[in-house]
Amino acid sequence: MNSDSVGIVTPQCAEFDQPLTLACGRVLPRYQLMYETYGELNAQASNAVLICHALSGHHHAAGYHSDEDRKPGWWEACIGPGKPIDTNRFFVVSLNNLGGCHGSTGPASINPETGEPWGPDFPPLRVRDWVHSQARLADRLGIHTWAAVIGGSLGGMQAMRWALEYPDRVRHCVVIASAMRLSAQNIAFNEIARQAIQSDPDYAEGHYLKADKVPARGLSLARMVGHITYLSDNAMASKFGRDLRTGSLELGDEDQAEFQVQSYLRYQGSRFSGSFDANTYILMTRALDWFDLAREYGDDPVAAFRHARCSFLVISFSTDWRFSPHRSREIVDALIAADRPVSYAEIEADEGHDAFLMPIPRYLDTFAAWMRRVGEHR
Amino acid sequence: MNSDSVGIVTPQCAEFDQPLTLACGRVLPRYQLMYETYGELNAQASNAVLICHALSGHHHAAGYHSDEDRKPGWWEACIGPGKPIDTNRFFVVSLNNLGGCHGSTGPASINPETGEPWGPDFPPLRVRDWVHSQARLADRLGIHTWAAVIGGSLGGMQAMRWALEYPDRVRHCVVIASAMRLSAQNIAFNEIARQAIQSDPDYAEGHYLKADKVPARGLSLARMVGHITYLSDNAMASKFGRDLRTGSLELGDEDQAEFQVQSYLRYQGSRFSGSFDANTYILMTRALDWFDLAREYGDDPVAAFRHARCSFLVISFSTDWRFSPHRSREIVDALIAADRPVSYAEIEADEGHDAFLMPIPRYLDTFAAWMRRVGEHR
Repeated sequence: MNSDSVGIVTPQCAEFDQPLTLACGRVLPRYQLMYETYGELNAQASNAVLICHALSGHHHAAGYHSDEDRKPGWWEACIGPGKPIDTNRFFVVSLNNLGGCHGSTGPASINPETGEPWGPDFPPLRVRDWVHSQARLADRLGIHTWAAVIGGSLGGMQAMRWALEYPDRVRHCVVIASAMRLSAQNIAFNEIARQAIQSDPDYAEGHYLKADKVPARGLSLARMVGHITYLSDNAMASKFGRDLRTGSLELGDEDQAEFQVQSYLRYQGSRFSGSFDANTYILMTRALDWFDLAREYGDDPVAAFRHARCSFLVISFSTDWRFSPHRSREIVDALIAADRPVSYAEIEADEGHDAFLMPIPRYLDTFAAWMRRVGEHR
Repeated sequence: MNSDSVGIVTPQCAEFDQPLTLACGRVLPRYQLMYETYGELNAQASNAVLICHALSGHHHAAGYHSDEDRKPGWWEACIGPGKPIDTNRFFVVSLNNLGGCHGSTGPASINPETGEPWGPDFPPLRVRDWVHSQARLADRLGIHTWAAVIGGSLGGMQAMRWALEYPDRVRHCVVIASAMRLSAQNIAFNEIARQAIQSDPDYAEGHYLKADKVPARGLSLARMVGHITYLSDNAMASKFGRDLRTGSLELGDEDQAEFQVQSYLRYQGSRFSGSFDANTYILMTRALDWFDLAREYGDDPVAAFRHARCSFLVISFSTDWRFSPHRSREIVDALIAADRPVSYAEIEADEGHDAFLMPIPRYLDTFAAWMRRVGEHR
């Protein structure tokens, strides 16, 4: 364990008994949220930072769950003592979103009305539902105003929605590798992922838990599709090229040949399908598809951002083709037109969309420099 | 029917009884190839053009099969009287490749040794096997030397292989939206397509025909994945944007919302799965993965192209991300270094990889201008 890690952390669970009215109009009578915190909340409760996770993320963003734990949290690169989200200065809150499958109430939880898992009957969620449930968690923790709300990808969408829904509860907003809404191509990839899951016979119309099944093939395929979109063409080329794991491409030996990239994807798919809930995956991709920052502001992102009162940092990565720099520049342009304070960094990186999780020096330095200002303001 | 169409055409079938030794070392005792021809072969048999098809193509490249036929062949944009591949001047031969599922011998054909469909036991094919079987078709038709061998995508790989395997039988070679070998990302997409098919329980380990099943869900998914890679992000944006087919994105109405792009992909997938053989799809994608123009020339494309004696036209499309202009420039660079005559056109087009099938004026004009020289040279 490195000295710049938050070390051993213990997840906590917050139970909420007041009903939550969702954007779809349905009401969740009660729910729980799993979360972790890193660092100390100061006396004024002014140093709290919220981490919003991406599609397949969860509350375990930094540190380790035990001494034996081999892998740290998913954003270990950015959260810890002396890191951009510096736990010597900030009280960091990271949760598993509602609808998730890592301890927060979601499709795999028991529906109190039926005594069975919710499955596909779990209410559809919008990004704003996450924001509202996160606001209740903030209340519970005694945090009125976040020093910063931070997220990458789908997490960046939550951060932007926070700035519009609770303008007086967010001082800084960090939006990394994100977009104001999905493109048709983004939606198309999500659709394939959902089709892969839903056409797996073991999906059982979503009631696989009741049927004691797991749509492992479909979920694995969905993850494989996702993985391609997280990596850049360059990253795949330098990581795998056309290297073979087995066999050769000599004539006559082709049937034994397997490319490294094939076995990598299969491994990723199969590992994921053993640990993630298929209905959660569908729910999260649909929330992504439906997110449209400016829809209710007359489709005008400038009008939307005029509601924000925080400072923004927007970061994109040169080879990210899932949410390309162009999509980040749209955010920046709208913020400038709305006369909001915004800094923008476009980081040269070979890693595609995944770059936002990586310890890329220029990214970390830029992010850290900006975060140092977060403590100084107000 | 337009006057620039070849009109009504009738597919023909050529039976080959001499065994064909394949690159994998196995021998196909006999086989048949479905083909069509457009235009007239001249007395010197010097005006013949071979069309090589792409992944899901077939022999029906131009014209109509009947007066009731609503859709012309797949390359109607480029083949016909006065078109780039001008049937007033050329005798055009278009076939369904070995391993195909449109009448040529392939996995869905009966294995004479067992009396059952070959299924997954059909021998694996390399691009060179297609070239060799096409050479036999040329012999049968009395064509020693092709005025041009032409192909897009996987077809361009066949055209390049022709130039190396039979240098004295090709005068001109047209390589459109192609590459000398697949990238890791290209292979990854093919792997997902294969996984989708093979993980469909109705695939039955490849023996679905014997089991009287069709792995329709898997094949449909495979096609959906392919479709995304054929279209550019821009093309999808202008074709579909975020338009809805049903429902609305108003809060509370999300469950009814379906994006146009979702229903388009599903339609494409389902249509394809009703008309294409799953084992053929696997076979073709594997041939794509394995293709590596320069492998046996010490991995040196310049050394490879030194074996060619023809003139080359290479065409790419600005928004093609399956085989980007960069991949075409690699071909051009190698040809220049090998001192082969080459023309290169990079066409501005919004349609992505699919552009090679489209009637894009600058593309057609460039292609036609170059083809006019084909008759003049020898």
